Amino acid sequence: MRRVCFVLRVRPERVEEYRERHREVWPEMREALRECGWGNYSLFLADDGLLVGYLETPDWAAAVAGMAEREVNGRWQAVMAEFFTDLDGRAPDEAMRPLAEVFHLD
Amino acid sequence: MRRVCFVLRVRPERVEEYRERHREVWPEMREALRECGWGNYSLFLADDGLLVGYLETPDWAAAVAGMAEREVNGRWQAVMAEFFTDLDGRAPDEAMRPLAEVFHLD
Repeated sequence: MRRVCFVLRVRPERVEEYRERHREVWPEMREALRECGWGNYSLFLADDGLLVGYLETPDWAAAVAGMAEREVNGRWQAVMAEFFTDLDGRAPDEAMRPLAEVFHLD
Repeated sequence: MRRVCFVLRVRPERVEEYRERHREVWPEMREALRECGWGNYSLFLADDGLLVGYLETPDWAAAVAGMAEREVNGRWQAVMAEFFTDLDGRAPDEAMRPLAEVFHLD
């Protein structure tokens, strides 16, 4: 099981709305993530807009590729894109780059 | 079990050395963390020095307070302090502020 951590930047003025939206993530989006191997997946958000994602997955490339094929993910990412900065035209999930793990304790 | 995520800033010019040091965290430091309830604890480091910590613990305040009483932690934090920016005179572990969790999927 690989542990993956990524960071994205939410526009500071959209932080509260981003938080609200994530209280009601569509059930079919949650189900798709589960089916594609996004386990123990959390999003953490700082007041300045720094967003940290953490998940555990057997295969990160497969987890991303699986979601890329889901219609519901396309709709979700399109809605979410405007909340972020620095996407350079990518969907938010296309901009997720794993950080290097430098320490782990079970 | 609470999921905790915090971010700190490693000096960009010390990123490689920080990574090296964490390949050999002292066994007694690892043991103290375990005993104080730092479970599934990972550190992730970006090239620009952004450090993300993630852990699971029954009680974050107790996990921090427990480590604060350990002599080995005092020695470890003293060695690590010079790797960080923005500590404002605090030890690195005193500067760990949990981000708000805005989403979770088991």
